[in-house]
Amino acid sequence: MRRKVYVEGSRPDVRVPFAEIALTGDNPPVRLYDTSGPGSDPAVGLPPLRAPWRTGRTQLASARAGEITPEMEFVAIRENVDPEVVRAEIAAGRAVLPVNVNHPESEPMIIGSRFLVKVNANIGTSAVSSSVDEEVEKLTWATRWGADTVMDLSTGKHIHATREAIIRNAAVPIGTVPIYQALEKVNGDPVKLSWEVFKETVIEQAEQGVDYMTVHAGVLLPYVPLAVNRVTGIVSRGGSIMAAWCLAHHTENFLYTNFDELCELMARYDITFSLGDGLRPGSIADANDEAQFAELRTLGELTHIAWRHDVQVMIEGPGHVPMHKIKENVDLQQELCAGAPFYTLGPLTTDIAPAYDHITSAIGAAMIGMFGTAMLCYVTPKEHLGLPDRDDVKAGVIAYKIAAHAADLAKGHPGAQAWDDALSKARFEFRWEDQFNLALDPETARAYHDATLPAEPAKTAHFCSMCGPKFCSMKITQELKEYAAQGMQEKSTEFLESGGKVYLPVVQSL
Amino acid sequence: MRRKVYVEGSRPDVRVPFAEIALTGDNPPVRLYDTSGPGSDPAVGLPPLRAPWRTGRTQLASARAGEITPEMEFVAIRENVDPEVVRAEIAAGRAVLPVNVNHPESEPMIIGSRFLVKVNANIGTSAVSSSVDEEVEKLTWATRWGADTVMDLSTGKHIHATREAIIRNAAVPIGTVPIYQALEKVNGDPVKLSWEVFKETVIEQAEQGVDYMTVHAGVLLPYVPLAVNRVTGIVSRGGSIMAAWCLAHHTENFLYTNFDELCELMARYDITFSLGDGLRPGSIADANDEAQFAELRTLGELTHIAWRHDVQVMIEGPGHVPMHKIKENVDLQQELCAGAPFYTLGPLTTDIAPAYDHITSAIGAAMIGMFGTAMLCYVTPKEHLGLPDRDDVKAGVIAYKIAAHAADLAKGHPGAQAWDDALSKARFEFRWEDQFNLALDPETARAYHDATLPAEPAKTAHFCSMCGPKFCSMKITQELKEYAAQGMQEKSTEFLESGGKVYLPVVQSL
Repeated sequence: MRRKVYVEGSRPDVRVPFAEIALTGDNPPVRLYDTSGPGSDPAVGLPPLRAPWRTGRTQLASARAGEITPEMEFVAIRENVDPEVVRAEIAAGRAVLPVNVNHPESEPMIIGSRFLVKVNANIGTSAVSSSVDEEVEKLTWATRWGADTVMDLSTGKHIHATREAIIRNAAVPIGTVPIYQALEKVNGDPVKLSWEVFKETVIEQAEQGVDYMTVHAGVLLPYVPLAVNRVTGIVSRGGSIMAAWCLAHHTENFLYTNFDELCELMARYDITFSLGDGLRPGSIADANDEAQFAELRTLGELTHIAWRHDVQVMIEGPGHVPMHKIKENVDLQQELCAGAPFYTLGPLTTDIAPAYDHITSAIGAAMIGMFGTAMLCYVTPKEHLGLPDRDDVKAGVIAYKIAAHAADLAKGHPGAQAWDDALSKARFEFRWEDQFNLALDPETARAYHDATLPAEPAKTAHFCSMCGPKFCSMKITQELKEYAAQGMQEKSTEFLESGGKVYLPVVQSL
Repeated sequence: MRRKVYVEGSRPDVRVPFAEIALTGDNPPVRLYDTSGPGSDPAVGLPPLRAPWRTGRTQLASARAGEITPEMEFVAIRENVDPEVVRAEIAAGRAVLPVNVNHPESEPMIIGSRFLVKVNANIGTSAVSSSVDEEVEKLTWATRWGADTVMDLSTGKHIHATREAIIRNAAVPIGTVPIYQALEKVNGDPVKLSWEVFKETVIEQAEQGVDYMTVHAGVLLPYVPLAVNRVTGIVSRGGSIMAAWCLAHHTENFLYTNFDELCELMARYDITFSLGDGLRPGSIADANDEAQFAELRTLGELTHIAWRHDVQVMIEGPGHVPMHKIKENVDLQQELCAGAPFYTLGPLTTDIAPAYDHITSAIGAAMIGMFGTAMLCYVTPKEHLGLPDRDDVKAGVIAYKIAAHAADLAKGHPGAQAWDDALSKARFEFRWEDQFNLALDPETARAYHDATLPAEPAKTAHFCSMCGPKFCSMKITQELKEYAAQGMQEKSTEFLESGGKVYLPVVQSL
């Protein structure tokens, strides 16, 4: 069975959650990273656990000063690494620890290529769909299945109230794209946007506790024409809004020209930048083109400016990219942005499968994770078609937890394979309940098994309905192992004398 | 709309099917590879289209003699390549064209790294589940969604009748694993197996028209101990059966010692070998180990023996492999087996997600396809848990069509990207019906769209419920394109004068 356990740090209020899965027999329990949070009554919200840890410094400033904050100790325990590694990676800008001082309810987590690959889930209302309650439920649902951060991309009515409800109930960092709300404030007319409206919006969201913000400060006026002849133009909402503003005013992007002041704001709340890729490709045809990489160069420039202000930075990446062009994205981003964490949307490796883009993109996400991307923004089956509902959120998170874990394995992350080994050992030993409990989605694994072999005895059967009793290779191998243990030649003789049955069905009647 | 069209070759009975998708406006129709077959009444079966093409020679012998058979011409049209390329690839052993002379109902297809990556779907009854009618329905269902070949892995009762029904209704090549039926003939006792029983089974299946057969001739006695200390031992059913036989008799694998005679049989019917990887890894922990690669070396040896008998060969591969160990599998297989087509099961890139192994393995399948694997054997959501039903078959085929097409794109297969480009162009131009019709699964794409915007006008709306009207980046970009076409500076002025609206909602009421 699965239960939540806490590992205490050097002070009693550093309590790091893990999901502990008890196994049958003398198999040791397995501890997994746990994003689900302590649970809350939506009307009350979560307790402000980190309130006593507040200092006047950002995590980056503390790290640079050689200080290991309680947040850093927390993530060190969570990731099973030395706290000094955490501090050093943050100090170097290679990892971010997003914690707005006004979101003390969150459990610290870290995003960087030296650590476990993380998954973000996007939720949020749109003008034509969803409600506040639904969004809070999507938040807890997403983190239950393993989302490490959640972005509230609400664009309809009640943006402020929706965000407030989400933050107060979020044990994970919350990200936003402030330009969406700024646009609502000017009645949806991009041309009426201004630095003042944007700044006011950032302050409003900062006060609420948003931990990281996507800012499309790299969509520069001269880059816009580079996107005009693409198959799918500009597909980032923020990117297209800023491009429209730049063109209408024939003036440079106000996010770029006011970036220093924006950094001062971000530093005040210790908000992390997620520098948006407003010119990311929206189709296979547009991948890795000049528009995309021109913006990436500017994001590299902005990274250094933010760092000068002690503001943490991650860099957003595509999008739609065929497999052979994925590695170039990571290599170039790491070079241009001096190792700042990469945070990519997929990428989708083909455009042909709307309704299955959690799969087209899990392929790209796993690969880009292997190459060093630190966080993967999920894509749900509804991508390109509509707003994700509860089932879509789960499907997206599960697909991306698979991609992230596959990347952890490929990177040789210490401890990652222990989960696979525990599950495979349970599988080989026909410990069905252990196999279900260790699964990323125990309920569905159990339901699929029971669909063809529902009887209780089948849970201890040494086969499943896939092959049936006579053809279970695992059963046969277990017998082989026993012979091997006793000397094969000798056993060969004995085996034949005993009637030569390799399989004695456990549940004949099934 | 989608309709079937035929392209005629140099003789009137060479008629190659394509799915043609008509688009709206002046957009040219798109033609896609079509595996769905002409359709049949299960009680009657398909017409024997290829009966007049029979010769005494195998496709490999013909290719070596410089002859372009009607089958080769058929696949050349299907793949849009020169027939001489098809002939040369078959002659060199780098591609196979599986056509049992007794399965004249099938439409020729080719498996090789120079061609489109193919997908195989496994179906078949087990001792505890399914019926003949269900299996024929799974066959037509699998090919409807794009399965290029189907393996009948039935292990329960009525194996012969199930296979007969499947072959007579199959417009795709059918593969089997004859050892399964051979084992039924000796009442499920591997020790009682013999070359004679196996040979009799091969002849029975050859007469019915099986196009390719998995044979575990590489599971040699000295390799068995190499698998004993694995986390998951031997997970191939055929592999474990042969290992049990070898150990019980302490004798070399009879498939290996009688391989020349088996080749003569295969040549008589022009059956293609699918040399089984009986020692493939069944967990991340066991990937790329000595047991696996020892067997692969033997498969390389057997490949050359088969070729001497004019028998076509493909090589089966794993299984469970973490991403960073995938490429080594292809490189070694291509080297040891002199370029014979590789045919892999996934591989699954992590063990932690039973119920989602179509996704864990689509990641590995896409990558191994990019590295040169010619055919991908699907994995369904029920893998490790139970027998796939109709929904699982579809989920598996769709995930693998995505993987195969992503690999075609990454390999730069000529023409592959045209499908993506057509769909992305339709998406960008808000041609919703065209986007649905071009989708790998039009029904599901349409249903997902309609879930939040069901009204008919939404099908022509310039947005979807994901972002709503104000935030549709594609809409904004389209406006930008128009400005660009007229000179940006000039348009900037005009745009502001006109009121500065970048978006004029088409369907305000939604």
